[in-house]
Amino acid sequence: MEHIKPHSLGQNRRCPGCWKMLTVAMCMALVACLQAQELQGHVSVILLGATGDLAKKYLWQGLFQLYLDEVGKGCSFSFHGAALTSTKQGQEFITKVLESLSCPEDMVPRRCAELRGQFQQLSQYRRLRTNEDYMALSKDIEAQLEHKGLREAGRVFYFSVPPFAYADIARSINSSCRPGPGAWLRVVLEKPFGHDHLSAQQLATELGSFFQEEEMYRVDHYLGKQAVAQILPFRDQNRKALDGLWNRHHVERVEIIMKETVDAGGRTSFYEEYGVIRDVLQNHLTEVLTLVAMELPYNVSSSEAVLQHKLQAFRALRGLQKGSAVLGQYQAYGEQVRREQQKPDSFHSLTPTFAGILVHVDNLRWEGVPFFLMSGKAMDERVGYVRILFRNQAYCAQNEKRWVADQSQCLPRQIVFYIGHGELGSPAVLVSRNLFRPSLPSESWKEVEGRPGLHLFGRPLSDYYAYSPVREQDAYSVLMSHIFHGRKDSFITTENLLASWVFWTPLLDSLAHEVPRLYPGGAESGHLLDFEFRGTQLRFSRQQLEQLVPGPGSAPKPSDFQVLRAKYRESPLISAWPEELIAKLADDIEATAVRAVRRFGEFHLALSGGSSPVPLLQQLATRHYGFPWAHTHLWLVDERCVPLRDPESNFQGLQAHLLQHVRVPHYNVHPMPVHLHQRLCAEEDRGAQMYASEISALVTNSSFDLVLLGMGTDGHTASLFPQSPAGLEGTQPVVLTRSPSKPHQRMSLSLPLINRARKVAVLVMGRLKREITMLVSRVGHEPKKWPISGVLPSSGQLVWYMDYEAFLG
Amino acid sequence: MEHIKPHSLGQNRRCPGCWKMLTVAMCMALVACLQAQELQGHVSVILLGATGDLAKKYLWQGLFQLYLDEVGKGCSFSFHGAALTSTKQGQEFITKVLESLSCPEDMVPRRCAELRGQFQQLSQYRRLRTNEDYMALSKDIEAQLEHKGLREAGRVFYFSVPPFAYADIARSINSSCRPGPGAWLRVVLEKPFGHDHLSAQQLATELGSFFQEEEMYRVDHYLGKQAVAQILPFRDQNRKALDGLWNRHHVERVEIIMKETVDAGGRTSFYEEYGVIRDVLQNHLTEVLTLVAMELPYNVSSSEAVLQHKLQAFRALRGLQKGSAVLGQYQAYGEQVRREQQKPDSFHSLTPTFAGILVHVDNLRWEGVPFFLMSGKAMDERVGYVRILFRNQAYCAQNEKRWVADQSQCLPRQIVFYIGHGELGSPAVLVSRNLFRPSLPSESWKEVEGRPGLHLFGRPLSDYYAYSPVREQDAYSVLMSHIFHGRKDSFITTENLLASWVFWTPLLDSLAHEVPRLYPGGAESGHLLDFEFRGTQLRFSRQQLEQLVPGPGSAPKPSDFQVLRAKYRESPLISAWPEELIAKLADDIEATAVRAVRRFGEFHLALSGGSSPVPLLQQLATRHYGFPWAHTHLWLVDERCVPLRDPESNFQGLQAHLLQHVRVPHYNVHPMPVHLHQRLCAEEDRGAQMYASEISALVTNSSFDLVLLGMGTDGHTASLFPQSPAGLEGTQPVVLTRSPSKPHQRMSLSLPLINRARKVAVLVMGRLKREITMLVSRVGHEPKKWPISGVLPSSGQLVWYMDYEAFLG
Repeated sequence: MEHIKPHSLGQNRRCPGCWKMLTVAMCMALVACLQAQELQGHVSVILLGATGDLAKKYLWQGLFQLYLDEVGKGCSFSFHGAALTSTKQGQEFITKVLESLSCPEDMVPRRCAELRGQFQQLSQYRRLRTNEDYMALSKDIEAQLEHKGLREAGRVFYFSVPPFAYADIARSINSSCRPGPGAWLRVVLEKPFGHDHLSAQQLATELGSFFQEEEMYRVDHYLGKQAVAQILPFRDQNRKALDGLWNRHHVERVEIIMKETVDAGGRTSFYEEYGVIRDVLQNHLTEVLTLVAMELPYNVSSSEAVLQHKLQAFRALRGLQKGSAVLGQYQAYGEQVRREQQKPDSFHSLTPTFAGILVHVDNLRWEGVPFFLMSGKAMDERVGYVRILFRNQAYCAQNEKRWVADQSQCLPRQIVFYIGHGELGSPAVLVSRNLFRPSLPSESWKEVEGRPGLHLFGRPLSDYYAYSPVREQDAYSVLMSHIFHGRKDSFITTENLLASWVFWTPLLDSLAHEVPRLYPGGAESGHLLDFEFRGTQLRFSRQQLEQLVPGPGSAPKPSDFQVLRAKYRESPLISAWPEELIAKLADDIEATAVRAVRRFGEFHLALSGGSSPVPLLQQLATRHYGFPWAHTHLWLVDERCVPLRDPESNFQGLQAHLLQHVRVPHYNVHPMPVHLHQRLCAEEDRGAQMYASEISALVTNSSFDLVLLGMGTDGHTASLFPQSPAGLEGTQPVVLTRSPSKPHQRMSLSLPLINRARKVAVLVMGRLKREITMLVSRVGHEPKKWPISGVLPSSGQLVWYMDYEAFLG
Repeated sequence: MEHIKPHSLGQNRRCPGCWKMLTVAMCMALVACLQAQELQGHVSVILLGATGDLAKKYLWQGLFQLYLDEVGKGCSFSFHGAALTSTKQGQEFITKVLESLSCPEDMVPRRCAELRGQFQQLSQYRRLRTNEDYMALSKDIEAQLEHKGLREAGRVFYFSVPPFAYADIARSINSSCRPGPGAWLRVVLEKPFGHDHLSAQQLATELGSFFQEEEMYRVDHYLGKQAVAQILPFRDQNRKALDGLWNRHHVERVEIIMKETVDAGGRTSFYEEYGVIRDVLQNHLTEVLTLVAMELPYNVSSSEAVLQHKLQAFRALRGLQKGSAVLGQYQAYGEQVRREQQKPDSFHSLTPTFAGILVHVDNLRWEGVPFFLMSGKAMDERVGYVRILFRNQAYCAQNEKRWVADQSQCLPRQIVFYIGHGELGSPAVLVSRNLFRPSLPSESWKEVEGRPGLHLFGRPLSDYYAYSPVREQDAYSVLMSHIFHGRKDSFITTENLLASWVFWTPLLDSLAHEVPRLYPGGAESGHLLDFEFRGTQLRFSRQQLEQLVPGPGSAPKPSDFQVLRAKYRESPLISAWPEELIAKLADDIEATAVRAVRRFGEFHLALSGGSSPVPLLQQLATRHYGFPWAHTHLWLVDERCVPLRDPESNFQGLQAHLLQHVRVPHYNVHPMPVHLHQRLCAEEDRGAQMYASEISALVTNSSFDLVLLGMGTDGHTASLFPQSPAGLEGTQPVVLTRSPSKPHQRMSLSLPLINRARKVAVLVMGRLKREITMLVSRVGHEPKKWPISGVLPSSGQLVWYMDYEAFLG
């Protein structure tokens, strides 16, 4: 849609004179016509931290590339480099950098030299320290505009400075250097964007007090990598072929990988604070993940739609747990830290330099598909890629010797976005020939030439349709162009940033004291870092025989103890560390269920509410493949008088942690009818009686196969509370009761009904229960004071499950 | 437990004389002591069809092997070969066969020759035609026993005769040739055991009138193949390693394959009647399937337990549908049939010589794991195997060049029971080295020697722990021994046989007129026979561009037509072939749902019961990943007054076809309360009023976002029937009605409530609806005669969805 205007070059040539006015700072102005030719205006780019490493290495080059791309398109422009350095030093630095700018391979050298000369003339250094400096800059820009009779289109401030400097600069820009009316402001921010959810939120709030959301462009340079930037266009242009494939029925796994050969030597002060998850996974790999996992908007060129869909992808990510990660640290790291940071020999860093993470996307498209994220330093090769491996759903009738690469559906089928480096040495998009011939824009992607002997992902290169960019571009050049064109979908919005931290922070917290596995680094690591999943848990494939790094202290591990069997209140007691206890209880429940189904064809399980059963429900949902859910009836032991969908509802917990994950037939699930005729637990709605008659109709002899109870610190169980008469005795199987804590109204199975059960399990966990556990061990049958003491199945079995904290304190 | 008795040989030497008594038939008697040395007795084996091909090729050799195995174990024996042939011819035939019997490799030749001489002396031919012949045989055996002072242990009758001869022989044996009191009878039967479930049942009933179940030994010689016979012992001896692996979480697929290079030439008269499924899959491959899939009994040497578990495996098999199979026929077959059976050139056989089948085992262990069964004639190689491929759940952190076979979890992990032939050339058990080192009985299985260059299943042989039998044994030799030792688990019981036919018969019926894909045969077939699954459907991977065999007729394909848009009763009509129509309706429902959720946060969908919506529900469940199920409320348009779990219940259909597959929160699902207080649709239980108030509480303005209706051939819709006043007008939103067909009692939304909906879709499919479609197109608003004519949303939209058969007839 953009055409070259013949007079645009001439217009740029008029610029140089106007720069003479600027003396203290070097000004870079980028004049662009953003919408169409007639909308000419002046864009000033102010590069903050213009003398820093990033600027030297990438940003100036990126700006030059932008100039080259846009110079012929009817736009005039100018730009300013700024830092705290003195004018002289800064100017000298800049001059050197500008002289070393390189030209694209496909450009005639003379033409490039000419344009580089123009670019140099348009650029100057300027010291920016005080608010006054910013005011002066603004005035200079205005003066220049007036002098040349140009309309201001906008200003870009590129923050290539440490985050602690953000606030002051932002304040000065906001108060003293905003462009005039009708012109836009774009501030470009570089990571880190916080250290966790809280700090990211604080930083975002602070920036939000100076800038509008649409003014902020947070850079994740991975989004400028050509292969990454191609993911959505590829999905869009190959919609038809991918439509049936891009889902859990066809994708076996997704691998999102960034391996580095370098280590953190020389950067340990930064690295110690961040580690590999914050450095690479939380940002780069997560961004890539969302591009793969998100629903594809109808219009992929709508930034708004892309960002919205990305946010939805974040929301579908299943929360990470400690078991979702494996961590490593290359062996030399500890010594590097001690040396660079003058730490004593006794100091052992726990910072991971390698992480493998298993991510699940909990929606219908991706349910059950493992997404592996992995990054590490001191690896055997430098390479980055996203690999989508499809399931083999074929049987090939001939001997494998006769399989032909582009025809056999039994050879691996995969799509790889090869981000760079590695054996291929350049960005690429690979599509297995037995999959489909992909469509890529021919002006920017060309077929890769044959490389006999090169194998990638298990197959020779010739097995793929392989494309690489016609012109390799640095990520920052790509992003400069996107800033210029206002393509916000290549940047991180506040919402997306916080969504990412919401996802990662709990894992980072839970891993804070985890001892990483030491690895020698390079090819020496062998299979030491291979990892695999079992259910939702990730673990290293090789068991470590000796611990190579001493951990901080060495608290006894759960596995150091056996499950303890004893008696409590004359009934069997099973005690263990929480994890083992839950595992044991879940095993016992399954065994009971299997026996009941074998004998009676069904299993009636009554579950208590509250938080204790949550890990149990999760265990049952994700680890018990043999559980006869199709024949299980689920009943509630008690319920709060709130609507079923209220987060406080016990049923809601059951829904979220169990029912979502297993297949219990709808009519086998029996929520308590606490919400009838639009009111809660009204006596006259007779909900308790309804539940009782449902039980009596379906449960033989009203005798549950298993009732799971808890015990409160006041000795309550189910929703039967001390000094409240209801439900402790009498003939009413289900009762309305009153809790001392909110919500007060409850519905509960009565003690007599509970005591009809074939089996009752009481689960007691945590230090807070220590006191009541001691007390109840000594009292007799006093249900009015301690309702739990009234639990004694008349002909069934009672078993106590207590963790060590509750039992031993 | 069996020890050699020094005097047993001498005992056998006394035998020869006694055979002189037998003149008409040649008798073979096998004398065995079955339990222990002291229990000596005489076993007579009568081989019926002793001059046939099978006998010549395998059975005599099997009997000789048995003799060699048992001769030193304190048992005396004798045996009789029988047929319809004259004594002279038969005797000559037998003499030749006996002379050519081969000795085991590991036996001293002189010793073997000696034993073969003994065996020959023990064997004679005997003609068996009439009942009198059988009586005479029995008398001869008794006389011999008396003469030698031996106790009779039992008689084995081996039926190596065509099934049509079974009944007469069985009758004669039963009436005239049973052994004396205290001795057992074993009849050994060879397939085919019927042609389908009915014929198998008839045959079984017939045999059952002559023999007890425990007397019958139905042979499937595959169960005697050493690698097949090793499956259960292997699972048993490697229980610990396999325990966590042998399930859907770890097994990616199971392949059960028997490929032959020979074709059916010379046997087409048999083959035309049976085809590859009856010839190989229904018996051999299915037996193997059950050995892999069955739960492992605690005691695998208990025949009873094994047979019982096998039967359970049969019961867990998901029913096959037409789409579960792909069929092929080698190109030369048609001509062979025409030639061998003198058929005219116009005759085209539809008999498959190749079949690929996708089997699912519907239990918690195997749910979702594809079992591929495949067999074909004129293939590129002769080979049989069972391959269990495990999922790759690992990510290997190093470049694949550095993966080491016994350590990398990313290389294929598989267990193969190699039945025979193929590149390996012998039976074997292969276990990938990255899996575990298997335990096999060292007296009968030895490690395979290295074969550099040999690749099997994608990996060099050196990647496997590979074992082959110390002594290769023919299947019939193995089975003779099992008959002798009464190991019934190596044979097909009547129950198991019928269970297999129950499984296969519906598929065979549905494929009866299916045109198989023609294939050239051998290596020429290329990828033509590769097949793959999508969901539960199997299909050839390569689309066939031209039909090589003329099929019966060629009806227009759905894709030949576009979706048609028109008007019907002044409302929009969408018409298409069924598949497109369902896809379109599902798309429209999703779009409506997405819009509603975006606008109101929820979507209220009311669905009709019956069979028409089933494909729609399946489409929604499996193809619509973006459907906002978490925010969707599901209501019933109507319900039959049966319990919710009754197969007749509309809700049951919803449960099975939709709720099982998607995640609708429990409290968003609203079954109709047709079953209250243990009775169905009692007026006084006020179920209809309850449903109405639930609707009014949750659905704004009681206005559903979408109501899906059908239309009956009598013009009814929902459960509103002609000439029944309820629900056609008035203020009751939900009503009890009466259907002319069973079950009569119904609950239904009323017309006024339906007409409050924002959108109503009416789905009409099938030729049977043609007439009413025509009629209703012409009538006005006459709901009392045609309730469907009363559907007219007051402010919402009405859309008709009709397939071409309903609309165009």
